[in-house]
Amino acid sequence: MDKKEFERIKAKVLELFAKANVILTDLEKESIEIADFGLNKIKDTGLQLITYVNTEKVCAKELALLPYQTCPEHKHPPRGFDDGKEETFRCRYGTVYLYVEGEATKNRTMNPPEGDEEYYTAFKEIILYPGEQCTIYPNTLHWFKAGGEGAVVSEFSTRSTDESDIFTDPRIKRVPKITS
Amino acid sequence: MDKKEFERIKAKVLELFAKANVILTDLEKESIEIADFGLNKIKDTGLQLITYVNTEKVCAKELALLPYQTCPEHKHPPRGFDDGKEETFRCRYGTVYLYVEGEATKNRTMNPPEGDEEYYTAFKEIILYPGEQCTIYPNTLHWFKAGGEGAVVSEFSTRSTDESDIFTDPRIKRVPKITS
Repeated sequence: MDKKEFERIKAKVLELFAKANVILTDLEKESIEIADFGLNKIKDTGLQLITYVNTEKVCAKELALLPYQTCPEHKHPPRGFDDGKEETFRCRYGTVYLYVEGEATKNRTMNPPEGDEEYYTAFKEIILYPGEQCTIYPNTLHWFKAGGEGAVVSEFSTRSTDESDIFTDPRIKRVPKITS
Repeated sequence: MDKKEFERIKAKVLELFAKANVILTDLEKESIEIADFGLNKIKDTGLQLITYVNTEKVCAKELALLPYQTCPEHKHPPRGFDDGKEETFRCRYGTVYLYVEGEATKNRTMNPPEGDEEYYTAFKEIILYPGEQCTIYPNTLHWFKAGGEGAVVSEFSTRSTDESDIFTDPRIKRVPKITS
């Protein structure tokens, strides 16, 4: 991603956060993470976020998804110090289509990014509108996608260690963090 | 607190949450907790909150303070399963005056509720404006008070067990939860 593309996405993310009335300090605005997961097609597959806090025990983030952008399928496996990351997603703006392990929803609303269907296996659909939330327990495959307005999602979790996430798509090695 | 007083406070809390653009489901609006800590002077000493999630590991709440209302001094001691609750307060609306153990701040901005001075011992001042935050580690005495606009504060923490909190004021036995 070149500097121009980075700035274009960052501006969209700040717009989404403003719509959700997420108030950030100037320092936080400068440290927004933009992840394309190494797939180099961030409009389809990517995630933008700010981490408020990440201590040994607790992490809180604000996630932003561009319209129809997908955070690819992954799980949080056991780590040396626990059974894996537990996380609760709470929708603040837009609509989030969350897909988790379990019985596949018939006639689900969203599809994986075109061409990457083989790397998606979890199809139990949970739709989150603003004020709605869902807890994902450790080691559970999940992916999520925004509707047409994009989305802002608060994440409340145990300690975050992105490098330990396991993605279904083997081309994704780890979350590359691109910050300004 | 009678029903009329309860409804009056609840209306003010919903107004504060609306100002911070905190979006709640109807069910959440009905389950707002209003705590007067058994002191029966909620305008001075009290706390209103909604708990989004409280699993074995992670808790997230949205706190609302009325103008100049104080959440009284307390700490979160070790529990059977950990060293005590760890919590991060992030201001979303208004101004929060947080006081913690440590070197007392000279010429601090706020005072404890009138008449209750003897039950307040922590005077290191941390002022939080919207977008600012502070982490309180276990077993640390703290109290906080809103400025003239009231305040909305997100709390990200380990598991919450209000009944294990230790208050400096011995008249407070535990947090009485008053819900509609």
